[in-house]
Amino acid sequence: MRSMTSSDKPDHAPETAAGPAAETAPAPTGIAAQDWATAAADPQYRAAVVDLLGALAYGELAAFERLAEDAKLAPTLEDKAELAKMASAEFHHFERLRNRLAEIGEEPTRAMEPFVAALDGFHRQTAPSGWLEGLVKAYVGDSIASDFYREVAVRLDSDTRALVLAVLDDTGHAGFAVDRVRAAIDAEPRVGGRLALWARRLMGEALSQSQRVVADRDALSTMLVGGVADGFDLGEVGKMFSRITEAHTKRMSALGLAA
Amino acid sequence: MRSMTSSDKPDHAPETAAGPAAETAPAPTGIAAQDWATAAADPQYRAAVVDLLGALAYGELAAFERLAEDAKLAPTLEDKAELAKMASAEFHHFERLRNRLAEIGEEPTRAMEPFVAALDGFHRQTAPSGWLEGLVKAYVGDSIASDFYREVAVRLDSDTRALVLAVLDDTGHAGFAVDRVRAAIDAEPRVGGRLALWARRLMGEALSQSQRVVADRDALSTMLVGGVADGFDLGEVGKMFSRITEAHTKRMSALGLAA
Repeated sequence: MRSMTSSDKPDHAPETAAGPAAETAPAPTGIAAQDWATAAADPQYRAAVVDLLGALAYGELAAFERLAEDAKLAPTLEDKAELAKMASAEFHHFERLRNRLAEIGEEPTRAMEPFVAALDGFHRQTAPSGWLEGLVKAYVGDSIASDFYREVAVRLDSDTRALVLAVLDDTGHAGFAVDRVRAAIDAEPRVGGRLALWARRLMGEALSQSQRVVADRDALSTMLVGGVADGFDLGEVGKMFSRITEAHTKRMSALGLAA
Repeated sequence: MRSMTSSDKPDHAPETAAGPAAETAPAPTGIAAQDWATAAADPQYRAAVVDLLGALAYGELAAFERLAEDAKLAPTLEDKAELAKMASAEFHHFERLRNRLAEIGEEPTRAMEPFVAALDGFHRQTAPSGWLEGLVKAYVGDSIASDFYREVAVRLDSDTRALVLAVLDDTGHAGFAVDRVRAAIDAEPRVGGRLALWARRLMGEALSQSQRVVADRDALSTMLVGGVADGFDLGEVGKMFSRITEAHTKRMSALGLAA
């Protein structure tokens, strides 16, 4: 996933007491302090990570396809090239995640398959009807995925975490989408109302497909609620979804799309 | 463009007398011996190269879009990923060509625009109706483009030639297409007849769109027939098309698609 601009950062970054003795973040504990070889000895943790990598890999491949498709709606060759660039970046993320699955001895296709229906469903339900809807979707999808990657990273062993953060911390391609959408709203303010509805629908579909995945995939869900990590209770996954939704709402307001 | 496998090489590679004194190829003469700064002083040569880079750049961008679209027809996730990989490679070729246009002070969009109609026309006329047609198109398109890049490279100044050959000499992505098509024909030989017709249609459309470009773009055509390069007469461009067509026919036979 591509990174957000710094002003997009969700406001739940870990806070440390800023005293003179607290210059470094607290050392990781539990799973986060282990490397892959150690953590993967727990078969449930291993299954959860395979699920996660499979879901992220197919998510990137599906995003590639959608962005390439939406590039056709571009009004200019420059815009087309920008969306194609985002698509190509997603493909490279896909490659890294797929290669990691192969590295740990998993068949990438088998790891991705459980998530095909939910992700294809999301994209089918949210096919943009025009260029601006496509841009808002690219930006929203990018941002939500970044938030999710950051959230999940803290529950991972050090090797998997490094991969997830590397894929996330690529570049901020979505900035151009923001510029274009803002300019369109400035030119015709009524466009903003329509796009605000669209952004709400995107978030609604994303949440409903996530629910489906959480309900289907035991190992992954258990990891998300902290069952095999440390210090998370059942309410934690609900809070995570709330934080992601809130960050989304703030970004939409900043974009001129009042919810 | 991606390179062909060595067995695919057209048989018109320059031959040198293989005597003991002839260990190196003859030194380039004329334009081919000049760098960009020198060659571009001729405004007609400059216009021809801008045309060429614009045509190649939009060709790569359009190929990206088509391959990404055709990836949807893939029967498996692995096949989808392979086609997405080819698409992503085309996007990177596009980026190099576009950046070169910007480097020499040309507006990339303006350089590409004259070729949009012909390339979009080609893709519209040859939208594959299924996965195998998509694969044959990917392979044929890749190979014809490689042949054309090689042919045109010898008429270019050293800097432009290096770029064109670098874009060409990327990797042989099309090998997987060949494997898949061969397996499908082995499994059901009648498929071969249908795909042979399809390959002929692809070549026909490619030639007819090329004619259109040649008729429209004076500077580019003059370069192709040798007007601003050296040692080529008017018949040469016809011979070039013949060589490309012949190489195509040989490749199709090797693939089990008798013309």
